[in-house]
Amino acid sequence: MTHNEIMGEAIALSQHNIEDGNGGPFAAVVVKDGAIIARGANHVTAENDPTAHAEIVAIREACRVLGTFQLTGCIVYTTCEPCPMCLGALYWARPDRIYYANTRADAKAIGFDDAFIYDELVLPIERRAIPMDQLMRDEALATFDSWKHKTDKTHY
Amino acid sequence: MTHNEIMGEAIALSQHNIEDGNGGPFAAVVVKDGAIIARGANHVTAENDPTAHAEIVAIREACRVLGTFQLTGCIVYTTCEPCPMCLGALYWARPDRIYYANTRADAKAIGFDDAFIYDELVLPIERRAIPMDQLMRDEALATFDSWKHKTDKTHY
Repeated sequence: MTHNEIMGEAIALSQHNIEDGNGGPFAAVVVKDGAIIARGANHVTAENDPTAHAEIVAIREACRVLGTFQLTGCIVYTTCEPCPMCLGALYWARPDRIYYANTRADAKAIGFDDAFIYDELVLPIERRAIPMDQLMRDEALATFDSWKHKTDKTHY
Repeated sequence: MTHNEIMGEAIALSQHNIEDGNGGPFAAVVVKDGAIIARGANHVTAENDPTAHAEIVAIREACRVLGTFQLTGCIVYTTCEPCPMCLGALYWARPDRIYYANTRADAKAIGFDDAFIYDELVLPIERRAIPMDQLMRDEALATFDSWKHKTDKTHY
């Protein structure tokens, strides 16, 4: 399959998702060794899950199929530039490459907060729209120390 | 319960998570009307799910309990400053307030990529560590147009 054929499948999936009423106009597919191994569409409203963006759904499914928590050797095709949540998820999953179609500005133009959230993430914590305060760092640091000294841990 | 008692529960949960070998030293709880309604700990390695960070697990559980995709009126307590994925998820879930204990720098000091991902998200797309390229925007924009004109959609 060509890049455009694969992205075309993702775009078709996003169009079906609108018609099926599952959530927003977003879909993603994960490819490994030239074959689509996972698909995801936005299911936020259908599943009452604000994290069920297309990329998150596709990453989780691809990891389930592969039996791993890493997408090494995979390419992700998404119908829109990932929002900060999904881009963060992609960095944790570590695919080799990402292709996207619409931009965060295109998403903003139809009412989605992607661009707003990108702007918020770079603000100093005390200037963000959702108030964030620190508590009990010393007590929490003790758990990080436990992790650091755990000898049988799985790195990720 | 006081703020410290609630954060203390989250910290205890993160310590148990290390001992149980489910994933990293991270936990979060969601509070509504003074009561803990959901808990989450990092299950990345136990569930082969790179998105199963404490906050994501707790947000999904809280939304399941409440039967909604929004955490209006809720407070989230997390044992570490959220990574970009989790902070993005929190912005989509829209709780009223967030409390955190350890910082992204503390997470970096024990080997987690939080600070690196924050740095990557603000780079121009062409300078990021994971290559990202745009394809087929015109075709994808047609789906955004479908969404814009859908009369029976659920906004989120």
